[in-house]
Amino acid sequence: MVRLRLAPELITESWLNTDTEPSLSSLQGSVVIIYAFQMLCRGCVEHSIPQAKRLHQLFTGKPAQVLGLHSVFEHHAAMSNVSLTAFLHEYEVKFPVAVDRPAVQGSIPQTMQCYQLQGTPTLLLIDRQGYLRRQSFGLLDDIQLGAEVMSLLLEDQPEHPFAATDSGRGCKPAAD
Amino acid sequence: MVRLRLAPELITESWLNTDTEPSLSSLQGSVVIIYAFQMLCRGCVEHSIPQAKRLHQLFTGKPAQVLGLHSVFEHHAAMSNVSLTAFLHEYEVKFPVAVDRPAVQGSIPQTMQCYQLQGTPTLLLIDRQGYLRRQSFGLLDDIQLGAEVMSLLLEDQPEHPFAATDSGRGCKPAAD
Amino acid sequence: MVRLRLAPELITESWLNTDTEPSLSSLQGSVVIIYAFQMLCRGCVEHSIPQAKRLHQLFTGKPAQVLGLHSVFEHHAAMSNVSLTAFLHEYEVKFPVAVDRPAVQGSIPQTMQCYQLQGTPTLLLIDRQGYLRRQSFGLLDDIQLGAEVMSLLLEDQPEHPFAATDSGRGCKPAAD
Amino acid sequence: MVRLRLAPELITESWLNTDTEPSLSSLQGSVVIIYAFQMLCRGCVEHSIPQAKRLHQLFTGKPAQVLGLHSVFEHHAAMSNVSLTAFLHEYEVKFPVAVDRPAVQGSIPQTMQCYQLQGTPTLLLIDRQGYLRRQSFGLLDDIQLGAEVMSLLLEDQPEHPFAATDSGRGCKPAAD
Repeated sequence: MVRLRLAPELITESWLNTDTEPSLSSLQGSVVIIYAFQMLCRGCVEHSIPQAKRLHQLFTGKPAQVLGLHSVFEHHAAMSNVSLTAFLHEYEVKFPVAVDRPAVQGSIPQTMQCYQLQGTPTLLLIDRQGYLRRQSFGLLDDIQLGAEVMSLLLEDQPEHPFAATDSGRGCKPAAD
Repeated sequence: MVRLRLAPELITESWLNTDTEPSLSSLQGSVVIIYAFQMLCRGCVEHSIPQAKRLHQLFTGKPAQVLGLHSVFEHHAAMSNVSLTAFLHEYEVKFPVAVDRPAVQGSIPQTMQCYQLQGTPTLLLIDRQGYLRRQSFGLLDDIQLGAEVMSLLLEDQPEHPFAATDSGRGCKPAAD
Repeated sequence: MVRLRLAPELITESWLNTDTEPSLSSLQGSVVIIYAFQMLCRGCVEHSIPQAKRLHQLFTGKPAQVLGLHSVFEHHAAMSNVSLTAFLHEYEVKFPVAVDRPAVQGSIPQTMQCYQLQGTPTLLLIDRQGYLRRQSFGLLDDIQLGAEVMSLLLEDQPEHPFAATDSGRGCKPAAD
Repeated sequence: MVRLRLAPELITESWLNTDTEPSLSSLQGSVVIIYAFQMLCRGCVEHSIPQAKRLHQLFTGKPAQVLGLHSVFEHHAAMSNVSLTAFLHEYEVKFPVAVDRPAVQGSIPQTMQCYQLQGTPTLLLIDRQGYLRRQSFGLLDDIQLGAEVMSLLLEDQPEHPFAATDSGRGCKPAAD
């Protein structure tokens, strides 16, 4: 038996491509697809960002939201917000992108720690009730991804039978 | 208002890659995905056949069936069954492939006529009740295709409200 | 020390895409690039034929000649001349293509035997004096190929110092 | 009649991937292939950098030198040297890369101005005597590139008949 858990809130430093800073709570009711990436990660640039853009375009108008999460865990100075902003412009990324909040100590940013991400790219799929349904490091086939997102879109929304009742939203930002 | 119609039965000359010759009636209950192709059509070889193979692999074990339909309307002598058999072997196509029955007169085979296919490749999506839900000439994006097939897989199966009641299965084979 | 040998004449059954049937002797003075292929060989269709077409286009007007050699050693009935003709049409192959003459006995056609080709695709590069300078099974990088062809084009044409003096053109067609 | 001109010296701020800072003068005798790029230029990342890497690998051991030239003319703060260093590491670029010296005024760096580059990517081919033989904005086919580089490698090296005698190396760095 798999115990579902609510997807922990993103712990962010800032947002790009959006005026309102979305939270997972505020997106409840929508399927949320999060691409954790780094702008200098080749697999991200070659596969995940283009896939995210296709997904964003195809599910426009549906209760589904594509988000980027810039989780920098190496070459921090090389991937500052000014560089990320130019990257998103040049690669024509239009969906909101969160900047993962740096750790108080160490190189792994806080959302990355909270979700125990193995690296980038990682895909997170969150259902309309807010439960984390997929977390996978690496690349995912387009057909399978389309099928999974559609499956989550069409889910009835009763209480999940196996959902944890007390997990809340998980992680908390580190005290500065 | 769109009036759905039951997908006409395939009018076949023979089948490859299968011992039992499937009919759309016998596949009722499954989503049926049909790729009409020609073995010497470049768009088919480069895009549609590889996509069909991915789909076949990803939906194994689901009530979904990928079928090929070899609808030859040009270069007939060049794409005989012996050539098609070798093609399917070399391109590692494992799903059943129907050979569209040649016309009694003219170059357009009978299923192609019945469905009024514009050319190859054409994709047909048939829902679990047997209704034709998509017929599109050309190429379809993988994410969208995955989403559509999943959507059909998850459909409840009451009577379609707009279904034609008297259409039956449409076309009939030509009298020889 | 490598002893160069004159490239054996192609032993052909017929030619497509040409009114005059070229021989290697008649092409002396030009660099000759031969792609041995089968129309149902995937590596040939996906890589070698497109590469041959690029090469044919780029070296138009130079003393260089791209030739196809259809060396069928399996699925013979599937790759007859009528099928090959349609294939060349659909894939927009414009350069001359020789059909390798079938063996009197066995499945390996005669030019393939003579050159001891390991399979398809195989690339043959013949210099302007008629010597065989490369015979390689599999795929070759575009940059390297461009460099090699150009190198052969620019060669001075004295007698090759290591050329065999008595090899003649090698193989002979089998007596029927 | 085309008057050849000596390729102007690169006006650089710094070099990466090299201990000795090459100059075009010091490379005389070698074919020099320069890729002007920006690390956030998509065409550069997707096509030119991979092509430059293939070229660098294929011509190792020949009198040919691949160089990068990071000519930033937009998003300057986003493509600082710390970002470029990480980019070269992640994309496994091993050949020397010059950083084009920023303008004293305006956004176009000095080598870019001197060569009147139209944008990135731009390819420069310099022959073994130091003459600029190709300057092309955009993408170049691999076969053609391989052929051109080989052609320059094989050139005899008398004085070019049409070479300018008084052009020197052209541009000078701006006075700071």
